[in-house]
This record gives sequence, C-alpha cells and structure tokens, in this order.
Amino acid sequence: MATRAGRPGQLHLNAFLLSVGHHEAAWRLPESDPYADADVEHFRNLARIAEGGRLDSVFLADSPVLWSSVARRPATALEPTLLLAAIAATTSRIGLIATASTTYNEPYNLARRFASLDHISGGRAGWNIVTTAGLDAARNFNLDSLPAHRERYERAAEFVEVSRKLWDSWADDAVLADKTAGVWGDDSRIHPPAHTGRFYQVAGALNVSRSPQGHPVLVQAGSSENGREFAARYAEAVFTAHQSLAVAREFHQDLKRRAQRHGRDPASIKVLPGIVPILGGTEAQARAYAEELGELIKPEYALPQLADLLGVGTEELHLDRELPANLPSENEIEGAKSRRTLVVELARRERLTVRALIVRLGGGRGHYTVAGTPEQVADLITDWYDAGAADGFNVMPAVLPRGLTEFVDQVLPILRDRGLFRTEYTGRTLRDHYGLPRPAPHRSTTAPDVRELVTGPATR
Amino acid sequence: MATRAGRPGQLHLNAFLLSVGHHEAAWRLPESDPYADADVEHFRNLARIAEGGRLDSVFLADSPVLWSSVARRPATALEPTLLLAAIAATTSRIGLIATASTTYNEPYNLARRFASLDHISGGRAGWNIVTTAGLDAARNFNLDSLPAHRERYERAAEFVEVSRKLWDSWADDAVLADKTAGVWGDDSRIHPPAHTGRFYQVAGALNVSRSPQGHPVLVQAGSSENGREFAARYAEAVFTAHQSLAVAREFHQDLKRRAQRHGRDPASIKVLPGIVPILGGTEAQARAYAEELGELIKPEYALPQLADLLGVGTEELHLDRELPANLPSENEIEGAKSRRTLVVELARRERLTVRALIVRLGGGRGHYTVAGTPEQVADLITDWYDAGAADGFNVMPAVLPRGLTEFVDQVLPILRDRGLFRTEYTGRTLRDHYGLPRPAPHRSTTAPDVRELVTGPATR
Repeated sequence: MATRAGRPGQLHLNAFLLSVGHHEAAWRLPESDPYADADVEHFRNLARIAEGGRLDSVFLADSPVLWSSVARRPATALEPTLLLAAIAATTSRIGLIATASTTYNEPYNLARRFASLDHISGGRAGWNIVTTAGLDAARNFNLDSLPAHRERYERAAEFVEVSRKLWDSWADDAVLADKTAGVWGDDSRIHPPAHTGRFYQVAGALNVSRSPQGHPVLVQAGSSENGREFAARYAEAVFTAHQSLAVAREFHQDLKRRAQRHGRDPASIKVLPGIVPILGGTEAQARAYAEELGELIKPEYALPQLADLLGVGTEELHLDRELPANLPSENEIEGAKSRRTLVVELARRERLTVRALIVRLGGGRGHYTVAGTPEQVADLITDWYDAGAADGFNVMPAVLPRGLTEFVDQVLPILRDRGLFRTEYTGRTLRDHYGLPRPAPHRSTTAPDVRELVTGPATR
Repeated sequence: MATRAGRPGQLHLNAFLLSVGHHEAAWRLPESDPYADADVEHFRNLARIAEGGRLDSVFLADSPVLWSSVARRPATALEPTLLLAAIAATTSRIGLIATASTTYNEPYNLARRFASLDHISGGRAGWNIVTTAGLDAARNFNLDSLPAHRERYERAAEFVEVSRKLWDSWADDAVLADKTAGVWGDDSRIHPPAHTGRFYQVAGALNVSRSPQGHPVLVQAGSSENGREFAARYAEAVFTAHQSLAVAREFHQDLKRRAQRHGRDPASIKVLPGIVPILGGTEAQARAYAEELGELIKPEYALPQLADLLGVGTEELHLDRELPANLPSENEIEGAKSRRTLVVELARRERLTVRALIVRLGGGRGHYTVAGTPEQVADLITDWYDAGAADGFNVMPAVLPRGLTEFVDQVLPILRDRGLFRTEYTGRTLRDHYGLPRPAPHRSTTAPDVRELVTGPATR
C-alpha cells in the first residue's frame, strides 16, 4: 500500500449522485428501483448516507435536454436547485452542489436561486458552472445553432461577474431591523450592479440579502483550454476526469499555476478527479462485479452518442473494430471538447474496439474506474493525493445507493486510519468543509451613496 | 349572521404567505422576527399551520426585483419554487403555489421546475402565472423598457401553450422499466413539442417524466381585460382583489362566462378574492388592533410607490389631501392596470386623503381588509360564498404567524360548523383539494411514431 507522504491537510470527497448509479446499466440490477430518478426520497437517502460519511458535498450534473433515447436508462432529471432545496430540509451539514448553465439562464434569476439555496441550506450551496454543449439543448431555447465554444465561455465569464455583483449587492450588515425607528434596511448599504456588458445588462440589486456563504462555492468541470482558463479565474473546486495519475498531476499543476497567474492562492482551488469505485471483498470479486455490470450494457444504445461526441456519423463506427484513424480534432468540434479528447486517448492507448470502449465508458463515462478491494481503492486515492494529482475525489458510485454505502462503510475507515479524512465536520458551511474563505464583498460598505437613510421618528 | 343558502360544495382557502405578514409595518411589532424573510424555518412553520388547518394551499407572490427602498419592510424574497421545494419536505398534503414570470423565464426551464416541484411534492404544485409589471424588473433582464401590457400577455399565452406541450411530452406510461429486455422508456411515447411560434422555439421533450398532477394547477391574478381573458383561457384558480361583494360577484360571473365562451366548464375555474382578516375578541378590539398597526406605518415610504402605481410624480401627491382629480387612465399605463384602478376607486369612493389611503393599502395593498370577531369574518366569507362572489378566499394575514394561527383556530371551526369547509383532506394532490381534474395529455399516446422501440435481447 501507499505510504503517507505527510502532505498536510485533508482530502475532499464529493458524492456525485445520478439516479441509481453512474453505470448506465445499473437500473437493470434486481436491487435497483427504476423509478428512483423521479423520487426525491431516493436522493434524500443518498444525501443522508453521504452526510453520515462526513463527505464534503453531494453534486448533481445537469443539462436542459432529454437524451435522444429514453430506452437506455432512467432519463428524468429533476431540476437540481429544487432537488437540493428539498434535500436541504433533511440534512444539516453536507454541501449541496447544483449544476446550472450560463448559456440558458439569466444572471438575475440564477444568482438569486443560488443565494436562496444558500439561505435555505444554512450556507451549503455550490454552483457547478457549465456552458452546456450540444445542439439539442440550444434548440430548446429559441436557437437554431449552438453558440461557439469560445463565446459560451466568454458569456460564462461575464455571467459570473454579474452574479458576484448581485451576491454582493447587499452588504452583510444591510439589515438594521430597527423597529423603533421603523427602518428595516439601510438603503446606503445596497449596491445595485448597474452592469452593462457585452452580453448582459443588469441594473438592480438582488432581492435576497447576502447569504451565509456570501457566494456559493463556485465549481467548474471543463478541461479544455477555455475551460481551464475559466476555472483558473473563477473556480474554487474543479471536477475533472483523468485516466492516469501522471495526466492528473499535470492537470493539477497546470490549474494551480494558472490560478496563481490570476493572482489567486493555489490552495483556493481544489481539484477533484472523478473516480468510479467498484468494490469487492477480493480483487477478483470486484472484477467479476464489474464484468457482470458490463454484460448488462447494450452497445446499440451508446453508439449514436459516441458518434456524436466524436463528431462522426454512426456508420463510421463498427462495434468490433477500433476507432477510425481519422477523427475530427478537438478544434473542429464545438461540443464537449475535453471529454472527446479523453475518450479518444483512452481508446487509442488501450487499442479498444468500439464495443469495449462503450463498456468502459458505460461504467463512468470516461472517469477513472477502479475495481478492487476497499484497501486498493483507498491506496489509489492516497497515491493520487500524496502525488499532488488530486486534492480529493468526485466519487461516482456505479450503483446507488449500494456503492455509496460501501464506499462510506469500507473505504472511508481506511482513509481515516491514515489521517486523510475527517471523522467529524468541523464547520457548518460548504466553504468550511473545503477550507475556502468567505468572499469579502467586492464593494466597500462605507462607500458614499447619494441616497439618504430614512431615520425620522417612528410615528406619523 | 348569514344563513347558508345551501350552495353545494366547499369553499377553498389559500394562505398567502409574506414574511411576517401582509401589513407593511408588521415587522415592527415586538412579536415579529425581522429576519424571518430569509428564514426557511419561518415558512415551514407557516405551511405546517396552514396544513394543520387543512387549507387547500399556501402561495408565494414574486417579482424578480428589489423594492426601491429596503428601509420600509423586510425585502428578501427567497425564490418561490426553491422555497416551496424546501417546504414540501416537511409537509405532506398542502398545495404549494409559486409565482413565476413568463416575461423573464424560458419555457423549458420553468416548465421543468414546476414538473420537478410536482414530483418532489407528490402532486402539490401550482403555478401563479404573472407577466411582471415594472420597468425595474425589465432592467434586470437586459431590457431598457417594459414590454407592452398586451404583448406580455400574448407572450404569456404562448409560454403556457409551450409549457403544456412540455408537460405532456411524456405519456403517463412512457416508463416501461423492463429490466429483462433492457428497455427503460418507450421512445414512441415521448412527444417532443417541436414548437415554433411567435415568441418561442422549443424543439425537444422535457427531461422530466409526466408529473403526478400532469400539469401543475394554473393560477392567475391579473384582473385587467387582458388578464381576465388570459385567466378565462388558462387559469384554474384566480387570485383577485375586490372591495365589495357586488364588484366581486360581477367579476366572478364575468370570469365564469368568459371561461364558458372558451369551451370550459365554469366549475373548472375557482375565484378566490383576497381577504385580510384582523381578528379580535370583540369588534372594538379588532379595530383597535388595526389602528395600532396603522400607526406603525410611515407614509413617506409608501408615497413614491403609490405615485408610481398611479403614473404621476411624487410631488403631485399630498399626504393630507385627496388624490388629484386628473390621473392617467388605466389605458395610459403599462404596469399593474387592475390594481391601479382598484386603488383609485377605493380612494374616490371613501374620499380618502393620501395618508389615509396609504394606511388602508398598508394593511393589504388593496385587498379587502376586515377587522372583526371570528364570527364576523366567518359571516363575511359565508356571505360572499353564498352570493356567488367567491369560490373561496386567498387569506392574507396581516401579521404572521399569529394571524394565520388565529384564522385556523378561530374562524375555521365556525366555517366547519356551517358545513362550508373540510375537516380532513380527502385527496393527496392540489388538484384533489380544488376539485380539479388531472389533465389528459394533449396528444394521444397511440399516435404513430417513426422511431422504433428497441426490443432486442438484453445481451451484447
């Protein structure tokens, strides 16, 4: 097993929740409830398990579009900010991270929803910022074509800037609650964004007071050049996908360097690669379980999606051959660039047939899948952490709730024995868990303001 | 007291929740928590009280804008769909109605949020459809001017049409959950809207299965000509404001006639005027309490808002005089038309000074305020109900939670003795409470579809 290199601090663990598991065929197992995708109690249960394990957070991915076929797997995606608001009621500590698109929302509405979630959860909100690839999504929002990759990120940057202004539009001490004077809030401590930019005009202050965390924790998941630059500027946690420690370490170092170039403390951005742990009492048992899951996959479902990701026609892919030699490059596609590159590299490196690639992706859609004993999974986590390839992991159980329960019950005790993971929460907010500071308001609360505070007598 | 005219059925009661009460100075009372506007537990408590009283629903108004001054009263408005998702967790029967704007949302996003809320709450979601008056809101959404009243309603109509297509885009039996065949959903039972209209293009199906109620209950609150026509076409419940039984009855009859003209059953649209009950052991005590609340109002706060509603400059209004004789007509303003007319009529009829008008509006913003004993309030409710002026009431307690608790404990028993209100819920969904049918999907589930259901063997 790995020896601890004495790296200071603790690793961070997020549970990535997805219906009955990340494995696309998990719903076919006898233990799985095929209606769990629309069942709030299922998600509440998962959040309770994660909170019982003292994980930093739970996370929901999102895209405002229905998959091209519902035959393949559970397809209901309850809107994440609402689902997390519902989960907030039955948990008390665990962070709640929702994905939301900057391309298909308005800053005022979305900043408000995250401020609301932060109030509702007592400071546990996080926002995974996505720009949403795919023409299908664009066509649900009055568009005939997908905005270009670069423009989506430029829009995202301005969206985040506006959102920060909105979250800071109330000073922390804007509410006076002076019943005697009849003055509830101090108008001079309200700072409307008055934002006029390239993509957005937002004049007024938010109608929600500054929330417990000030800002939700900002999360990002794109690993393209545009994505990395965006993350380096804004993200406090980065969900990423790597197939080897070496590549993960390069990414980790690159992102920290970029963050420094933007004047940020490299410790203020946490990099969490995805990991799909498939656990067994022995390595052989774990591998047999992974094999069993793989056999439930129907490759014909995945073929069109893979072709779409690669930017080729379905007829160019053959289940029993390797990928074609000539594929469009990352620069030629406007979709999920970094995922496309990762998938192609995996297929080339291991010389996988399309069928074998589909089975590999079916387990974790390009994330690192490890089938082994709890000790082996804990070793891998320890190795990556100690090698500076990860500040923690985005845990993506193949089967839910089972995989999460097993991870909490079997892997976490080993990590705790090694001093790598908390035994109890030491704070109340998501920022506390990730060791992130509460953002100071961008504007001084003592800035002069032309409006005058009403302080007249409380009678008429 | 009123005698029951034997009108069949039961009245419907909704609790309109607003921070610590509808009276604008309620927050200044010693009993009021001035931070309750941002406290989810406060709202959970209110919902529990309402559910304890077996009310049909709770309701949250909304506008995506901060009031011009936060000095006046609590100003945080947690986003209603999120707040209701959080409330859903700690209630089990009461309906949950959120206001959302058709002018400042995208149909795909909003239809999805209501479908999600309906799933999360087990069929208790309602949507109060608003078009959002006011330039301040427009300026938070990239606009320099408010879209015209008529255009806002035309947009709203198309928005609702698209939303219905989205809610119906999954047949009720679209999920097969066939584990053996490996077929989760039936693609031939998914009906993408493929909507191309004047304002919206929405191609794809919702990524949420059809919800327990099929559609959320559709609520509307505008009483202008445009508003009435919209309500007659789409609304299943109408929140309205009237100052007299005669006017309320005219409105009630007009709306039912209009609904019939649109081919609807008049019973499928419930009209609920607002009522602000101020209760006391005697009428004199109730009036003294109302007076005490009125004395906490600071008219200087309300003056700019009143001027804005009337379409005049602040300098044209004088606290100790009546309204100016020449005011812009309803047709000349693009804002909240029907509210403006109601306020002007109230002021003219009772020859109120601006100061007295402000105090009257401070209690319920134009809704009917009645200070009296529980018996008197129950009589008024009974009279309006029996006279065909109301199918129920939108209860707007001046002070919360006190006013809601008192209404439940003191007024409801009288209404129950008269056989006018339920003693127990007889259904589980909001549609059950209001006696509304579950909408049939607009499209036949047997319509031919070019896509073929994958039914191959479950292996690879």
